[in-house]
Amino acid sequence: MCAGLFNAAIAREQQFHDLGECPLESGEIIEDCVIGYRTLGALDARGSNVVLIVTWGLGTSGEVLGNETMIGPDGWVDPERHFIVILDAFGNGVSSSPSNSRRQPGEHFPAFTILDMVHAQHRLVTEGLGLEQVHAVTGVSFGAMATYEWVIHYPDFVSHAVPVVGTPRRSPFDRMIGEVTLNALADCEPHCEQARESSWLSFVLMLRSPRYWNRRLEQDQVADFIEQMREAAKNQPDTHDMLSQSRAGLAFDVSASFDGVLERAAQVIEAEVLIVVANHDMIATPESSRVFADLSGARLYESDSDCGHLAFLAACDGEAIAAEIREFLW
Amino acid sequence: MCAGLFNAAIAREQQFHDLGECPLESGEIIEDCVIGYRTLGALDARGSNVVLIVTWGLGTSGEVLGNETMIGPDGWVDPERHFIVILDAFGNGVSSSPSNSRRQPGEHFPAFTILDMVHAQHRLVTEGLGLEQVHAVTGVSFGAMATYEWVIHYPDFVSHAVPVVGTPRRSPFDRMIGEVTLNALADCEPHCEQARESSWLSFVLMLRSPRYWNRRLEQDQVADFIEQMREAAKNQPDTHDMLSQSRAGLAFDVSASFDGVLERAAQVIEAEVLIVVANHDMIATPESSRVFADLSGARLYESDSDCGHLAFLAACDGEAIAAEIREFLW
Repeated sequence: MCAGLFNAAIAREQQFHDLGECPLESGEIIEDCVIGYRTLGALDARGSNVVLIVTWGLGTSGEVLGNETMIGPDGWVDPERHFIVILDAFGNGVSSSPSNSRRQPGEHFPAFTILDMVHAQHRLVTEGLGLEQVHAVTGVSFGAMATYEWVIHYPDFVSHAVPVVGTPRRSPFDRMIGEVTLNALADCEPHCEQARESSWLSFVLMLRSPRYWNRRLEQDQVADFIEQMREAAKNQPDTHDMLSQSRAGLAFDVSASFDGVLERAAQVIEAEVLIVVANHDMIATPESSRVFADLSGARLYESDSDCGHLAFLAACDGEAIAAEIREFLW
Repeated sequence: MCAGLFNAAIAREQQFHDLGECPLESGEIIEDCVIGYRTLGALDARGSNVVLIVTWGLGTSGEVLGNETMIGPDGWVDPERHFIVILDAFGNGVSSSPSNSRRQPGEHFPAFTILDMVHAQHRLVTEGLGLEQVHAVTGVSFGAMATYEWVIHYPDFVSHAVPVVGTPRRSPFDRMIGEVTLNALADCEPHCEQARESSWLSFVLMLRSPRYWNRRLEQDQVADFIEQMREAAKNQPDTHDMLSQSRAGLAFDVSASFDGVLERAAQVIEAEVLIVVANHDMIATPESSRVFADLSGARLYESDSDCGHLAFLAACDGEAIAAEIREFLW
């Protein structure tokens, strides 16, 4: 019965909400602006069991929906308990993106910020779904950065927030390594495929810590593994989509709306916040998160998993992280 | 008086030793093979105070000679006590290199291994300088890998060895991240300058740990710092030299001469060995060194400096590392 309900929930289909125009902080506009989403579970009588999940970089609501580490009886949220709304991010190829925009395709798609996206998602959740408040917002990485904007810009709307392996402000290392990687993709003709492969492979390696790779691979597996990574790199998502999210993610700083003062961003938060970081994370290094936890009084869970940015996976520290989140949210 | 002697020693000039042909493991030959070197201090009566230092990647004997962290009364070795011979590595632009070979210039320079280089350096030290044994061999990174080959292939010749931030065998992470970086330089026309800049900048960032960069730089310094790194990247050494050493370094495995069995390489060592590693090193990750210390009974010093690969610098853990080395060598 229980499993049946869950499987039924898994079948929930991709939905879209048309917002018309989405104005951006830059003054530009995303035309024919659409936010994709999927829902799982049912709203309770008091409307108090809504959990929003924002997709990770290049991830889709379909991928989040199938993720048993996050969703299910042993996950972060459970469709038997929560009404889960998974929000597709701008640039993920489902919500408005360079790859699917007819009027602003590819490089004509305007640069957006994560806050721009959160404003659009808020319109979907309030105007589209008619929700007046949510129990929680959560997300991984890109979705975690969005989670910060939700609690800072809609403080009355969100009761709990769980940003996982994200950051309230990109640290110097994040910004520098990210800029170097993106730089390799600029002006790359006629070797863009090679440039994309290189930057993708170094991103894949940095997703986990050196210690993980050295533990996981035997010497004689390295050559094959590089070949596998190369093969997998051929199925990369659209480059413009990737760049649009990378740029938004690399520039991310919740204090941007507060004259660069992180304290002021922390002070407007009314939600209870659980910040989950990974000490060996090289994509969203944990320093800013620790500072922000201090400033905001948020609860902080530091994973020591050598999986780094992927610490939340089941094979890494996923079980402990899920237990921590359940204890906080349920 | 003391300072005067030291300064006189510092003035020692670049010297060269012609070896004629240097045969390589591959069957190829470096023609007009030359090893550059400099000496400091004087040989004692018993000829028992010789310390060989092999240069680091792209470093020169002139740079090592001016390095007060390594050389001087508070360094690893002291010209008042030791007869120091600094050996230029193949591919560093001083010893035989793609950039200075007249008969095998650029891409025509044969690929060499670190062991090939050590055999040539051994010829200089024995045939050229007439030494019959040395008190110690040491070196940083590339020079540390050479240090392993010295004690493994000339066990009767070396009494003490101190490989610093090197590795006896490149770990999976080292090999993968290195291959990705080198791959960006292959077939890069017409954007080789950009490819070189990207791979150089990511190398520079990986030289230290994310934690270091986040501690060292304020948010508002990041843009300027990236600009400075870009500016500095313009003064990179010759690409073929860099590639020749990188390929030798990335393929490095002391067990290559022992059917891939690390234990057998460890067993032939007769020297006392102090292995210095940095736990946050992302260039020469420390796992293989720890294994090798166990197998060989070598003393192991693990630096926890967030400088990573550059832990030996004065501003990092240099003082403690120097004290450890002095206690071991003096």
